[in-house]
Amino acid sequence: MSEWCKENDERISITIDPSKYSHRFDLKGFIKPASKSRSALLILNQKINIPSVFLKLWAAFKLKVCADGGANRLYEFFHGNEAARACYLPDYIIGDFDSLKPEVEQYYRNAGVILIKQRSQFSTDFTKALHLISIHFNDSGFTTQISQSRQENHSIEINSGIHDWFNRIFSANNQRESEKISLLAVGAIDGRFDQTMHSITQLYKLSSSGSQFRLSYLSATDLIFFVPSGGVLLEYSTDFREKCIGNCGLLPLNGPTEILETAGLKWDVGLWETSVASGKLSSSNRFAGIDKCYINVKDGIVMNVEIYIDRLAEYIR
Amino acid sequence: MSEWCKENDERISITIDPSKYSHRFDLKGFIKPASKSRSALLILNQKINIPSVFLKLWAAFKLKVCADGGANRLYEFFHGNEAARACYLPDYIIGDFDSLKPEVEQYYRNAGVILIKQRSQFSTDFTKALHLISIHFNDSGFTTQISQSRQENHSIEINSGIHDWFNRIFSANNQRESEKISLLAVGAIDGRFDQTMHSITQLYKLSSSGSQFRLSYLSATDLIFFVPSGGVLLEYSTDFREKCIGNCGLLPLNGPTEILETAGLKWDVGLWETSVASGKLSSSNRFAGIDKCYINVKDGIVMNVEIYIDRLAEYIR
Repeated sequence: MSEWCKENDERISITIDPSKYSHRFDLKGFIKPASKSRSALLILNQKINIPSVFLKLWAAFKLKVCADGGANRLYEFFHGNEAARACYLPDYIIGDFDSLKPEVEQYYRNAGVILIKQRSQFSTDFTKALHLISIHFNDSGFTTQISQSRQENHSIEINSGIHDWFNRIFSANNQRESEKISLLAVGAIDGRFDQTMHSITQLYKLSSSGSQFRLSYLSATDLIFFVPSGGVLLEYSTDFREKCIGNCGLLPLNGPTEILETAGLKWDVGLWETSVASGKLSSSNRFAGIDKCYINVKDGIVMNVEIYIDRLAEYIR
Repeated sequence: MSEWCKENDERISITIDPSKYSHRFDLKGFIKPASKSRSALLILNQKINIPSVFLKLWAAFKLKVCADGGANRLYEFFHGNEAARACYLPDYIIGDFDSLKPEVEQYYRNAGVILIKQRSQFSTDFTKALHLISIHFNDSGFTTQISQSRQENHSIEINSGIHDWFNRIFSANNQRESEKISLLAVGAIDGRFDQTMHSITQLYKLSSSGSQFRLSYLSATDLIFFVPSGGVLLEYSTDFREKCIGNCGLLPLNGPTEILETAGLKWDVGLWETSVASGKLSSSNRFAGIDKCYINVKDGIVMNVEIYIDRLAEYIR
């Protein structure tokens, strides 16, 4: 068979045989995890430009972590509202603290927030935060130590203690098969372009089947996540889709690959070669499937879904 | 030899043998072209969020083109300043006009701006604008027709007349070897993520040696351009670099490749494999070379250079 592309009506009903997919994503689940107990909201160092939903996200996710200067952004978000600032305290602030402002550090220390300094320049603040979140959910000994220690840096070695702890509990022979951690990061996409791309690399790195995380990014315009190979059924309520969702794209950001089959997009494709260099991308596409669409890619690919952010709040309760 | 990475002092003096590079870029030249006569500023459909330099760019580039809804953004930029709006008229507005607001269309028509409608859905408004700019600079018959025609759409066939005209003058056997057109686009990077990536594909597509364009993007945070293989010497004045430039990144967005050698970065590398999926990117790097740096890549790569946009204005006169 050869490559094909088909334009669908705006709304179509599709049925997908369960044998055709090995992953099933609820689109809203990225923003409001079905299981709150293993979920985290990660705040990176960009202005929080989603004011209409930020506090809803705060309530929807269990653990709140600021990566270094992300704490500045949280602090600034509550400018002029001291009472609210004191209510919305993150569980952790972690990083090399190069970006963390002294007054912000002092404020959160005084408020009892756990600050963990990690000086190592061999990993980014983003990665340090990932390791911390993983340890938090998988080793109760960690939280016990943190709460009991009266030593500097909560007795965490200041250079790479978190990294070392992570490696101890997740050595290659000791992968846990526990429920994935739902992780939504804000401030990952809208900043300096190399930082945006660093965020994109994390989607690929955390895409292995052994990964503990289901990672996604929310920006002022998009929800961005990874579509692995093996077939993905993407589900959404008709109501959510009508009110909150605009265009979408399938973005081969690790090199040329093939979209084997889609069903339920406005422009469905099959055996469709795609690459950045050729300019052949499925962009400015949209969901035609009434309540689901199906995507099967040869190699994992990044998907963005346009979100009408101001309409999102009512869907995060 | 094997892969290496070296940390340099913040400021180093480097000398590169001219035999090692086949391209020489003046960094400031992306923003203020050395030869204005073949230069164009392309305004895409994102809010113009670089107010401190936008009018300077307007003066620095010869041709001004709005792609479809880009005209809305230009119009809105002069909100509350009718006199300025009437002074800053683009040379062309082109697209399928799906996004162009009726009142904006009427305003620019009345002001004598040339509007060219192209209905075809087989190319984007961005591509239509590229074709138009190319024809404008390479076929004087085009501008003559445009200025003389009293017919609808300036006698340009309304579906794909521009595309067809472009193909007529640039058939494969008829590549012109003329000076490249310096093209800076604004509004290419900050919007919906699939649109950002569509913009990135254009960097790759226009990177062939036969390309007529030297394309770059300016966002509120970055200057983004293509680094082709064959060795690139990137030059800048020490003053410009000290005042306007922050971090930089080398981004392999069409798949795994190798950075053969860099000289003059804070972290220089050699024979260095890089890919999005591995997470091994040269990001959060910066220029250490006092007035130049050297980059030699196996396959072309995207480079972003952080720009302190508010300090840029004085360098565009």
